[in-house]
Amino acid sequence: MPYSGREIHLAARPKGEPQLTDFRLVEADVADPQDGEIVVRNLVMSVDPYMRGRMNDAKSYVPPFKLDEALGGGAVGEVVASRAEGFAEGDVVLHDRGWREYAKVPAQYAVKVDTQLAPASRYLGVLGMPGLTAYVGLLDVAGLRDGDVVFVSGAAGAVGSIVGQIAKLRGHTVIGSAGSPEKVAHLKDDLGFDAAFDYHDGHPVKLLREAAPDGIDVYFDNVGGDHLEAAIDSAKNGARFALCGAISAYNATEPPPGPRNMFLCVGKRLRLQGFIVSDHFDRQPAFVEEVGAWLRDGKIVARETVVEGGVEAAPQAFIDLLRGANTGKMVVQIAS
Amino acid sequence: MPYSGREIHLAARPKGEPQLTDFRLVEADVADPQDGEIVVRNLVMSVDPYMRGRMNDAKSYVPPFKLDEALGGGAVGEVVASRAEGFAEGDVVLHDRGWREYAKVPAQYAVKVDTQLAPASRYLGVLGMPGLTAYVGLLDVAGLRDGDVVFVSGAAGAVGSIVGQIAKLRGHTVIGSAGSPEKVAHLKDDLGFDAAFDYHDGHPVKLLREAAPDGIDVYFDNVGGDHLEAAIDSAKNGARFALCGAISAYNATEPPPGPRNMFLCVGKRLRLQGFIVSDHFDRQPAFVEEVGAWLRDGKIVARETVVEGGVEAAPQAFIDLLRGANTGKMVVQIAS
Repeated sequence: MPYSGREIHLAARPKGEPQLTDFRLVEADVADPQDGEIVVRNLVMSVDPYMRGRMNDAKSYVPPFKLDEALGGGAVGEVVASRAEGFAEGDVVLHDRGWREYAKVPAQYAVKVDTQLAPASRYLGVLGMPGLTAYVGLLDVAGLRDGDVVFVSGAAGAVGSIVGQIAKLRGHTVIGSAGSPEKVAHLKDDLGFDAAFDYHDGHPVKLLREAAPDGIDVYFDNVGGDHLEAAIDSAKNGARFALCGAISAYNATEPPPGPRNMFLCVGKRLRLQGFIVSDHFDRQPAFVEEVGAWLRDGKIVARETVVEGGVEAAPQAFIDLLRGANTGKMVVQIAS
Repeated sequence: MPYSGREIHLAARPKGEPQLTDFRLVEADVADPQDGEIVVRNLVMSVDPYMRGRMNDAKSYVPPFKLDEALGGGAVGEVVASRAEGFAEGDVVLHDRGWREYAKVPAQYAVKVDTQLAPASRYLGVLGMPGLTAYVGLLDVAGLRDGDVVFVSGAAGAVGSIVGQIAKLRGHTVIGSAGSPEKVAHLKDDLGFDAAFDYHDGHPVKLLREAAPDGIDVYFDNVGGDHLEAAIDSAKNGARFALCGAISAYNATEPPPGPRNMFLCVGKRLRLQGFIVSDHFDRQPAFVEEVGAWLRDGKIVARETVVEGGVEAAPQAFIDLLRGANTGKMVVQIAS
């Protein structure tokens, strides 16, 4: 019995900001599983900034999405048919075939999750890839040390909000930037940041000088551009930067201006280190133990922006994500 | 008996490119040494790009030069009076009081050198601070590994020429950039570089793509600006950059444009690490053993640009250095 559902295809490669016409809603049949496969009815899917890069036809660390095929990305769903050992109907799994109602998934790309412990969407956010990205970037890539003052940009987002809270839970002074007064209030009032600013209020160089008058030791970069310039400006000698993303550049049609003060990296002995979370899956057990415990104990706030409306709502959700409409992790509810 | 000599004072802080009027030649008496001091008659002094930064009134890793006082920097001279244990008249010493004919030097800032082993100027170049900078930056900061393809900018300069030759002696493919056809020929014909380009021939991004079609693993940056953009562009995954200097920015009166492709650092997992040689003096013994042996065996070519004309020639020499007039280490002969 094949499964009939809807999925989102890439109709055109976006130029600059994605448009709804770059996407297409398609009816598709999903065949019965073959040996080693499962069929999943998706409940919730992720929209992430990195997906914008995959919509370009450019060589990168992940291959580009193909035109006229379903997009992909993190999703959690219920197994409706299985011919794979260890998976049974009714299991809930995390996998990489989002943007569709029904997905056929090779079992090696699926992992069972426990929705008694945490709701499905958590495995796309604080307990999933964004959480691990925050954990690895802060602790391993930036090499967080006692006494470090931490600055994180995109601090109200899925990754940034976890970066800041891990640093606070470890006793650090934390400064964040975000894109609205409401987000800034969220950082200070709900997440316990020591200082935060709205980057619309002036040049980040000036705003960070005011927010961190004694300078910063660690910068977790989700934004790039003038935020990176600000972090270099305020960096103390020996500061370490974890370069995780550059959302300011993702929709750019012209190369964005780079930081004009790179020469300061020499005298300040700065280290800028780019990283990709998939190189660090070995840290998953330590991450789950530490962050999972904090979440269970209510010490971490993981706000979500849940978009209702089914899979057809995903393109607009993604466009809104790149505009900063989310606070915390943004997911699209496909079914319940 | 005091010593009478001439010295170069900083008359004004340069705006942009230094002018001769920013310097002043002054007659000065040097008093007899006190306990723990020596008086040195300088033979040869160094001009180095980093001195440009010290001419600004800006906080940096070394304090700014003071107006209406003698400039300073590496010099080698002969002891003419000593009240310090271990130093006798006739000893030749390396110290930090250049830009003058006679210098009174606290003994702890002087180190004896052997001019039988190598001429005095060598201790300002290949066997001195520039050589150690090359050694530490390439091996420790960039972490040179077997098989790495190395790109060095300012490759015909005091530091860059040693970087390239150390990499070649260790069996690497080496690409260099320089500022004239003569320098490019020197890199290829005399120093054994595998490829080299004159950055006046086009945008460095394009020139480096042609010179290193398979990409680079290590970049030793003496230039900054569009050279850094080129290195990011051609970097392979996991490439490491040693950020040593940014001569393209030193005379800038406006902040120079930064690399427009910093976002590539994420997907390529690049590491950019600034460094200052004075943090690495513990590597001096290993450096002297390895590089000293190569120099002795004639395996390293260390061309010098020696400016005659005495201490009064130093300001023009420094201006010319920033314009790239030198090949290899530039020194000013003060006396013989």
